[in-house]
Amino acid sequence: MRSFESPSAANKLALSRLISEVENETSAGKAALDECFTRSGRAHLIGVTGAPGTGKSSLVNRLAQLIRREGKQTVAIVAIDPSSPFTGGAILGDRVRMRDLSGDPGVFIRSMASRGELGGLARATAGVVQVLDAAGYDLILIETVGAGQSEVDIARLAHTTIVVESPGMGDDIQAIKAGILEIADILVVNKADRPGIENTERALRANLELGYSHRVNGKAGHAGFTENNAAVEPKDWVPPVIKTIATEESGFPELIKAIADHRDYLQNSGLLAQRVRERLMDEFEHLLRHTLVQNWRAQTSTERVSQVMDAVFTRKRSPASAVEELTRSLN
Amino acid sequence: MRSFESPSAANKLALSRLISEVENETSAGKAALDECFTRSGRAHLIGVTGAPGTGKSSLVNRLAQLIRREGKQTVAIVAIDPSSPFTGGAILGDRVRMRDLSGDPGVFIRSMASRGELGGLARATAGVVQVLDAAGYDLILIETVGAGQSEVDIARLAHTTIVVESPGMGDDIQAIKAGILEIADILVVNKADRPGIENTERALRANLELGYSHRVNGKAGHAGFTENNAAVEPKDWVPPVIKTIATEESGFPELIKAIADHRDYLQNSGLLAQRVRERLMDEFEHLLRHTLVQNWRAQTSTERVSQVMDAVFTRKRSPASAVEELTRSLN
Repeated sequence: MRSFESPSAANKLALSRLISEVENETSAGKAALDECFTRSGRAHLIGVTGAPGTGKSSLVNRLAQLIRREGKQTVAIVAIDPSSPFTGGAILGDRVRMRDLSGDPGVFIRSMASRGELGGLARATAGVVQVLDAAGYDLILIETVGAGQSEVDIARLAHTTIVVESPGMGDDIQAIKAGILEIADILVVNKADRPGIENTERALRANLELGYSHRVNGKAGHAGFTENNAAVEPKDWVPPVIKTIATEESGFPELIKAIADHRDYLQNSGLLAQRVRERLMDEFEHLLRHTLVQNWRAQTSTERVSQVMDAVFTRKRSPASAVEELTRSLN
Repeated sequence: MRSFESPSAANKLALSRLISEVENETSAGKAALDECFTRSGRAHLIGVTGAPGTGKSSLVNRLAQLIRREGKQTVAIVAIDPSSPFTGGAILGDRVRMRDLSGDPGVFIRSMASRGELGGLARATAGVVQVLDAAGYDLILIETVGAGQSEVDIARLAHTTIVVESPGMGDDIQAIKAGILEIADILVVNKADRPGIENTERALRANLELGYSHRVNGKAGHAGFTENNAAVEPKDWVPPVIKTIATEESGFPELIKAIADHRDYLQNSGLLAQRVRERLMDEFEHLLRHTLVQNWRAQTSTERVSQVMDAVFTRKRSPASAVEELTRSLN
């Protein structure tokens, strides 16, 4: 645990309110984000993604619970999946377990509503994660369905991405179709007590070998990397395939170890610093574009724009020459 | 045919060269595009999209051939699919047929190489289509595989989108998975002489009914719309399902009629004007953003940017405050 006092119920409420300001992009929220930024960058951001029905939410619950039981790290959960118990539509058992987690001062749970504007959800999630990071949570689990563009953008936030599969999701694996395996740092086959587990595991390993051109170590739950970790300079990370049963505790010690291993790998290889820089650069460029257009709008009369656009609509001038005309005075 | 003289071989060569300038975004190409724009906007842009193996390229060949045989309209083909006979990787029969088409002065064929930069292919294709439009071609067939974001952007260019399926592509239909049916104005089941045609057709119709909440007319090859066209004000377009055999001529008269019907529908309903305006607005906004960032770069020293970004990387200032700092002098 970092320099972090387990927050009281009152502190959690204050944190919740701050997050709402950030989500709604109020001026108070924007000011708070600026301040949070200088205190953030220490949390391990973990994306957990998988199709509905893979038991991803139960897995996140159980993972948080067991990390807390070790007592070393605090955990925040940000749930974006509409089928998540945190965002609604779950079975009673999950809700009860969620309540157990909520009672723990070292756990913070937040669900995100989906937003109208494209990119809005990704931006809001990045903000919320930044606040939780600044608040001192060690691990932040970001739970998504991993389907649309928004979810792909959210996945890019994470340092470590866990892809959850389960047996009996059809002959071929759902996630393979969506190309989601390419983003996996750790693969989990959940519901490992279900029939078909061998087929699912075999299909995953075959795909991994194709994708990484590495021979994945045959031992259940571990790829070759883990064993060689201490001896050799880490070169490539081979995603381990870990079988879990979320309703029990089976596979979770291995999963917790794999998360820590991946964090070490990122740090030792210099990849963590590189990824963080790239993300900050992306964020800067996104904001720059947004601000330049806003400033242009503030300086350009609506009337003049519609005049020029009318000439475009009647094909008297091209879009390119319209842009030239309407940006000339700003130079 | 519009006010258009069948171009001589020399004219076709000049057109090819102009298109290369546009593709490579040279200054001559940009100037030509501005000029072409004022003379464009009259061609009917038809997207033809479908997975590899559906016989999409043969269908485009045959369609062009039969439209030319009617002698009323000139045709340009822009092929973006890497498996297309125009871009390579086709069987001999297709190549021969392509050569037949090339000999016709009322047909122009252009294949597009894929580009590195995201959005580059879509921008280049839009430019090439604009040149062909200005050159006087009545119908422009844009052939894509309809997979990635680039292809979706290209599909947005088209006034009429034809989605090509064929029997035996697996139990469920490839295109349904990719959500491609949503963009279809006309559905073609090609290779209608193959086994499994009934299943493919049934699956398509079932999906159409779901998607449009309309009862599709049971008659093979026609949706309800076509029959009611003359009698009622067009409200919603129900995509007709047309069975074709590209190696024969079966289904092509129906397909040519459906294309003309859809063009009439777009014109009479006012949708054509609306779509064209939206596309021009998109193009304007894309160019505006691009230009504003370019102007900003020209006015901001690289040294100052790296200074500020270093403060971001070390978390001394947030990306938002960096943007504020670096755009302030421009206001």
